[in-house]
Amino acid sequence: MTAPIPLYLEDLRIGMRFATAPYALDQQQIVAFARQFDPQPFHTDPDAAKASFFQGLVASGWHVAAVTMRLLVDTVPLAGGLIGAGGTCDWPRPARVGDTLRVEAEIVAIHPSQSRPDRGIITVKIDTLNQNNEAVQNLVAKMVVFRGGERKEL
Amino acid sequence: MTAPIPLYLEDLRIGMRFATAPYALDQQQIVAFARQFDPQPFHTDPDAAKASFFQGLVASGWHVAAVTMRLLVDTVPLAGGLIGAGGTCDWPRPARVGDTLRVEAEIVAIHPSQSRPDRGIITVKIDTLNQNNEAVQNLVAKMVVFRGGERKEL
Repeated sequence: MTAPIPLYLEDLRIGMRFATAPYALDQQQIVAFARQFDPQPFHTDPDAAKASFFQGLVASGWHVAAVTMRLLVDTVPLAGGLIGAGGTCDWPRPARVGDTLRVEAEIVAIHPSQSRPDRGIITVKIDTLNQNNEAVQNLVAKMVVFRGGERKEL
Repeated sequence: MTAPIPLYLEDLRIGMRFATAPYALDQQQIVAFARQFDPQPFHTDPDAAKASFFQGLVASGWHVAAVTMRLLVDTVPLAGGLIGAGGTCDWPRPARVGDTLRVEAEIVAIHPSQSRPDRGIITVKIDTLNQNNEAVQNLVAKMVVFRGGERKEL
């Protein structure tokens, strides 16, 4: 990255890429998230998980999404923050105990707003990979980005 | 619901609907989730949030997604559990401190697997609404569902 920080709409280019730090996923984290938000045996009970569809304890897909967001917040310096409007999300394989996750993100589209000149929508391809470079989540997200001329205090 | 419980692929019909219990979202929950997974001022700092794009503290979209999952797990009795393969997700407006969320879900497509006769993929339209019946999240999810003939022990 040689671009200025923070990044405004006019600083962004299609093809800009960001790579996050790694994130070590352990059993305690998987179970704690799942007990609160996705209390199913394949996320909360290592023994029951062995007999499940997944043949072992796996992270909730929403936990993977949350970890992905954490890694992005720590890495992608958009002015005004990372404000998601929505997107598509797929979990091609589960994240498991002991996995080390990291995220690679790339700006694939930039659309200045027609009605609101102070902002635009960018589309970002966000891949969450495990230690074998296998995707555990493929997210394509739309995010709101502001122009520097309307620098928001956030 | 007059269908048997748990529900296998052959029990499901397009148009089947599920409505969850309500979930009260408070500031402590919003801040706790965000500190861990989405540490941005509009999710973690009520004062800074007032001056932000959102003009007040709002829940991370991923927190809304996680709460939605919790409500679904407590309500939708799919045999083998709720196993998501992916989908599209939009956040048309933020969830705020004091909101009471609930989820309405409807099966909109059912596709038995061609290659694996023990299972199929269903598409479920999942709307997360606030106390004013405004959508805070629109999710269209694909889920794996099993036939009773291959009842999985989970």
